[in-house]
Amino acid sequence: MPVLLFISQIEPAELWKRALERSLPGIEVRVWPEVGPRACVDYVLCWKPPAGVFRGMDNLKAVFSLGAGIDHLSDRRALPEGVPVVRMVEPALTEGMSEYVIYQVLRFHRRMVDYDAQQSRKEWRVLSQVRPCERRVGIMGLGVLGQDAAAKLRVLDFDVAGWSRSEKKIPGVQSFAGAGTLDAFFERTDILVCMLPLTQETRGILNRRHLDRLPKGACVINAARGAHLVEADLLAALDCGHIAGAALDVFHQEPLPTDHPFWTHPKVTLTPHIASLTNPETGARAIADQIARCESGSLPRNMVDFSRGY
Amino acid sequence: MPVLLFISQIEPAELWKRALERSLPGIEVRVWPEVGPRACVDYVLCWKPPAGVFRGMDNLKAVFSLGAGIDHLSDRRALPEGVPVVRMVEPALTEGMSEYVIYQVLRFHRRMVDYDAQQSRKEWRVLSQVRPCERRVGIMGLGVLGQDAAAKLRVLDFDVAGWSRSEKKIPGVQSFAGAGTLDAFFERTDILVCMLPLTQETRGILNRRHLDRLPKGACVINAARGAHLVEADLLAALDCGHIAGAALDVFHQEPLPTDHPFWTHPKVTLTPHIASLTNPETGARAIADQIARCESGSLPRNMVDFSRGY
Repeated sequence: MPVLLFISQIEPAELWKRALERSLPGIEVRVWPEVGPRACVDYVLCWKPPAGVFRGMDNLKAVFSLGAGIDHLSDRRALPEGVPVVRMVEPALTEGMSEYVIYQVLRFHRRMVDYDAQQSRKEWRVLSQVRPCERRVGIMGLGVLGQDAAAKLRVLDFDVAGWSRSEKKIPGVQSFAGAGTLDAFFERTDILVCMLPLTQETRGILNRRHLDRLPKGACVINAARGAHLVEADLLAALDCGHIAGAALDVFHQEPLPTDHPFWTHPKVTLTPHIASLTNPETGARAIADQIARCESGSLPRNMVDFSRGY
Repeated sequence: MPVLLFISQIEPAELWKRALERSLPGIEVRVWPEVGPRACVDYVLCWKPPAGVFRGMDNLKAVFSLGAGIDHLSDRRALPEGVPVVRMVEPALTEGMSEYVIYQVLRFHRRMVDYDAQQSRKEWRVLSQVRPCERRVGIMGLGVLGQDAAAKLRVLDFDVAGWSRSEKKIPGVQSFAGAGTLDAFFERTDILVCMLPLTQETRGILNRRHLDRLPKGACVINAARGAHLVEADLLAALDCGHIAGAALDVFHQEPLPTDHPFWTHPKVTLTPHIASLTNPETGARAIADQIARCESGSLPRNMVDFSRGY
């Protein structure tokens, strides 16, 4: 019977254990720190595993991330060569992220931050409005999550472009590819959505130089990782009025320290890293499919390519 | 040359005049109160026209509403028999209404009101979340606007039902039709969206008796007319905790009086009747098409049926 080790400080371990056992009747699920003999662990499903965790797991067949990103696997380079590391792709994670992105895009597009402020002043005033075809949304990162959000924003008729490492063909979505197109992408973007994987190339990509390329009055949504954003540069751009608003779900330090200026900034809407959460039911079914593939001798889907870093 | 009279206290008359002249090169556009000889007026395009306005317009061919509803045409029954009264249907009005509805549905679905409150308290806490397929949205009114919103909410995988006078076939949307199904419709609805026309039958339909049928913790969105809602009944349902939140764009009295309790109610998000605005460019093109139909001897589309009241 294959053994799966579940590791997470924040996910509901018991819910996951039950969901995995339902989806994988032939598996033994152990929950960290109750590891048992390490050489018996076949699979690890984890979020932010502690350092050194993979030591002695000599028969490991795959490591599954509980999230879409794998940057939290700081020990991934210590894994035995050839062990696949796998990104989480499951329908609830994808739909939740698109919900968050569409909500925040509509919030800026429809000036709901201003209307909320008007309500607090008991002010009845109609603000000017543009059509979605006149609103240029720019999505950084066109993986499974970025493509789903882009397609749904197209249903709402937004003018959507995407920026990614390699060119992507999504109906109705202009594709910008590679570092050489970043300036042009930023210059045409009114509402910027960061959904990038965190890699050497993307760390700090939302910095002053790039934020300055956005048109005056642009808005920024970060649903990826805190380290994509140079927080001081965003604060400066908000305070000088170049950036009109920001919606932030991720931060350099989480939980965000109570003395951080984002908490009370009038132009910042923040949420506690909830843009999307992996769902235990649908997530466990996705893991069951992946393990069935591995057990039948195939490679899992959505494997990390360490040469590109995600 | 046909003469069109434009009447509105709130729409930008000059913008509309120019847009109409561009779309209808063969027409003379007059702006109220510069009417000229009333017998020369062929068409009226209006929002809340003053009482008695149609007197002497003996050659009127059609009256076009600037909004989707025609309840603001209080004099419509004084019109010469046979003059068509026409609802506004134009793409920007439709897409804007769906934007508003999707935004408010996502706001309740994703508990963004609670997250905003947490931000104000500097509280970092993840709240439980259900999938959109587990969230039952109920749309009252399945005309052009309701159908568009329903279809887009289905793209986001919400569990959508609609209630209307007659049965409607919309893929994936359960149809409730007629007064006899109202209770069942309310009982299965977590997020209620009112997009009804205002008629004798729908005035005050959002009253205590019906609100009580919603499951505890339901939310209410009113994007139709203030008179659909019995405001005191909603306040009571919010204050006793039966209804968790309301998003209101329309009110019995507009602008909403500054001493109205909605302004400061912690469970009410309000906007100044901006859920959707008719766009002068696309609206003028829609009117041009309608006038071309009339001038060629056809009836306009989207005519009001006075026997049903919309």
